[in-house]
Amino acid sequence: MKSANGINLTMLCDFYELTMGNGYLRAGLGDRITCFDVFYRQVPDDGGYAIAAGLEQIVDYIQNLHFDAEDIAYLRSRALFCEEFLDYLQHFRFTGDIWAVPEGTPIFPREPVITVRATAIQAQLIETYLLLEFNHQSLIATKANRICRAAEGRAVLEFGSRRAQGIAGAVVGARAAYIGGCAGTACTVSDPLYGVRAAGTMAHSWVQMFDSEYDAFVSYCRSYPTNAVLLVDTYNSLKSGVPNAIRAFNEVLRPLGITSCGIRFDSGDMAYLTKQARQMLDEAGWPGCKITVSNSLDEWLIADLLRQGARIDSFGVGERLITSKSAPVFGGVYKLCAVEGADGTLEPRIKISENVGKITNPGFKKVYRFYNRATGMAEADYICLRHETVDDSRPLEICDPDARWKRKLMENFEARELQVPVFEKGELVYELPALDAIRAHCAAEVARLWPEVRRFENPHGYYVDLSEELMALKDRLLEAGGSRL
Amino acid sequence: MKSANGINLTMLCDFYELTMGNGYLRAGLGDRITCFDVFYRQVPDDGGYAIAAGLEQIVDYIQNLHFDAEDIAYLRSRALFCEEFLDYLQHFRFTGDIWAVPEGTPIFPREPVITVRATAIQAQLIETYLLLEFNHQSLIATKANRICRAAEGRAVLEFGSRRAQGIAGAVVGARAAYIGGCAGTACTVSDPLYGVRAAGTMAHSWVQMFDSEYDAFVSYCRSYPTNAVLLVDTYNSLKSGVPNAIRAFNEVLRPLGITSCGIRFDSGDMAYLTKQARQMLDEAGWPGCKITVSNSLDEWLIADLLRQGARIDSFGVGERLITSKSAPVFGGVYKLCAVEGADGTLEPRIKISENVGKITNPGFKKVYRFYNRATGMAEADYICLRHETVDDSRPLEICDPDARWKRKLMENFEARELQVPVFEKGELVYELPALDAIRAHCAAEVARLWPEVRRFENPHGYYVDLSEELMALKDRLLEAGGSRL
Repeated sequence: MKSANGINLTMLCDFYELTMGNGYLRAGLGDRITCFDVFYRQVPDDGGYAIAAGLEQIVDYIQNLHFDAEDIAYLRSRALFCEEFLDYLQHFRFTGDIWAVPEGTPIFPREPVITVRATAIQAQLIETYLLLEFNHQSLIATKANRICRAAEGRAVLEFGSRRAQGIAGAVVGARAAYIGGCAGTACTVSDPLYGVRAAGTMAHSWVQMFDSEYDAFVSYCRSYPTNAVLLVDTYNSLKSGVPNAIRAFNEVLRPLGITSCGIRFDSGDMAYLTKQARQMLDEAGWPGCKITVSNSLDEWLIADLLRQGARIDSFGVGERLITSKSAPVFGGVYKLCAVEGADGTLEPRIKISENVGKITNPGFKKVYRFYNRATGMAEADYICLRHETVDDSRPLEICDPDARWKRKLMENFEARELQVPVFEKGELVYELPALDAIRAHCAAEVARLWPEVRRFENPHGYYVDLSEELMALKDRLLEAGGSRL
Repeated sequence: MKSANGINLTMLCDFYELTMGNGYLRAGLGDRITCFDVFYRQVPDDGGYAIAAGLEQIVDYIQNLHFDAEDIAYLRSRALFCEEFLDYLQHFRFTGDIWAVPEGTPIFPREPVITVRATAIQAQLIETYLLLEFNHQSLIATKANRICRAAEGRAVLEFGSRRAQGIAGAVVGARAAYIGGCAGTACTVSDPLYGVRAAGTMAHSWVQMFDSEYDAFVSYCRSYPTNAVLLVDTYNSLKSGVPNAIRAFNEVLRPLGITSCGIRFDSGDMAYLTKQARQMLDEAGWPGCKITVSNSLDEWLIADLLRQGARIDSFGVGERLITSKSAPVFGGVYKLCAVEGADGTLEPRIKISENVGKITNPGFKKVYRFYNRATGMAEADYICLRHETVDDSRPLEICDPDARWKRKLMENFEARELQVPVFEKGELVYELPALDAIRAHCAAEVARLWPEVRRFENPHGYYVDLSEELMALKDRLLEAGGSRL
């Protein structure tokens, strides 16, 4: 097994999680309760929001945490870990609490998306995989959401497996793309695995295998009369491809009474080609023939094609979606925000940085989203300490933590907690939604963002404010020079 | 199992590989022998060459090709495939031939890196996974090679798991980074799995867990006296971090006679900080303390830091390596180049495009690398038809296929075939090299490229020429309007 397929994911952790775990145990801190937040700092592509994704795989991971004998043997061979720690790992399981924002929810910088409360060793060990899965899937769901919005209701199919960064890049990427709004994928296994509809018809090699393009098209129509989407750009799209497709449709589909079919362009000037092809198809009596285009598309090219009046019914999007090519990193981080003190209460922790944007929000927290009851639109998010409660029956003044003179009075609003309990004392307490429900949730929640937040260029900065109490705590820790320095 | 870990990789194929397979079978073309080439068109980051990687995982995949009963059941449920095809898949295995350039070899645009000769159905089905693995690993190996060259002999550690695009992005990515020249990885599982040395010490959370930074450092030194690399930027690097590190080294390591240790900076101005820290460490009697830096590094930032005289012993490189952030797509393609004709001989095929760079090289081919016997340096690659032989005991005139007036007389050269046989009639005939041997091969072959080809900015275009016979064949097919149009 050399393909990283079927590995023990518990071992997919940064090595320092283990050296720290062993160190905590030796320092008597191993069972100390800690709180960590997962959050991100910047929206990819300078967009207005991101889409949270990856929770289902994180749940799966948490439930299967364990070290096999061969893992322990490897760790022992490194001569760094004490036997007490290796013994601890042998019986390792997760017994802490996790809260998370449901998949498909729009999320904004610096708000806690996942919060972990667990012993120091446990909370530390899961860091790498939590971040990997959250970062990867949120990246792709966010990019897919941009591309689908650019397509303005036309279907977007995820076509990128061959350019994906590894197995899960393709397979899990197809899942994340679906959450973001894609209609389906070319990746076969993502269909039985996740229920993302897999689709596809032919490559250029199909056309080249036959004695002529026409023969190739006729043969395909005969095999798939109700699913005949013909690739028309192997030789010359308008002189050969489209006319041969029309001949094949006339020859095979017309006698069967079939009026639905399709053609696909994978190269050339898509605006010109699709307008010409649409006219040729309509004139030949094939108004039900759909036009699909593919070839290094992204949200900007799609929007531009539609502005030019291209006649396109669906888009196949490959490498620029499956790698989020223009912004291939989602910068989620995992930061300690509280540690149990000697008296058993949680003491807040802060990470100070010369870069103000990198200073963390201390304490065990939660986050609300405020919706305007009149418009139904999301107006602001509000981070507070976990013991605080927002009473949305009364007005609430909120303020921008980075510019405190900017104040806003929330009235007639509904406050909804964004995080839901996922694990309690190591037990799963969250019913994982079906993928279609996640996708629908994403669409519904994106629709509740103002268009100014959704636009691609210079989107309006959505408000993410801190409670007075949290702000006072942060000020106090900052003035004290950071935690217990 | 929701994490794409342990899936049947045979099902990781574009759906159209299956619709085409079924169509070939129905059209009586299923057993027709075909030849496909894997090649790429453009070097990422406008570099002078790429590094081939991924073959070991491709071999693993080919050897394990099969469809499980549940796969067949899913495919049957799609109501697109005939029972004869589903029955064929039930007994599917690969019985063809594969040639490939060994991993770690520098490769250039448009030359065949992998060549497959197999029945149409078999050759088509493996397309997606071959490309995925070749593209992903070549991408990361190529980027790692750039970053390691920028580091000029200093160790580069791969730190990117948390920002990787999925499980294999991290785990297999660490393997590819090692091939390209990295010294190790933070990804634990890549060590027992591939033998890529895993390393790591502490995160900021370690420092924050203790009552003071000094306490955290002392505790770490006590647990790992021979491996004490302290992260010094949690509060204030020069006012607190470095002085506390020196105190901890003095307190714990000095009495033990240990003189090797380290500090790491993860933020701030690395040029300034490392120069100051080096002076502080030397003055305190710790010349053996190594300085590591991390924080969104890449080849340009590393080269810039070294130009500024930064005092750095090793680099931890994360997201910009593991996603090849500045160029996250490796554009390898899989193109039909020959099909068995009625008489059993292979007929060449070409894919014509308005974009001249996308026109393929037809026919069943192989590729030579010409080394100058006097200098040992690689001078040109030479693509010819597979039945051709280069006699390197005599001079050979080669010409640029895109500018045929550019001719070059090769003299005193050694011609070495780049591809090796990997599978013959479905049997593995290639002994997979150990990973360290692949890494050494990469370093040795990169050293045989002229510095002009290796430089980052405007590298010299390495010659990849076609044999006279291949050029004549291509001309003939182009003039005929492409294959059998």
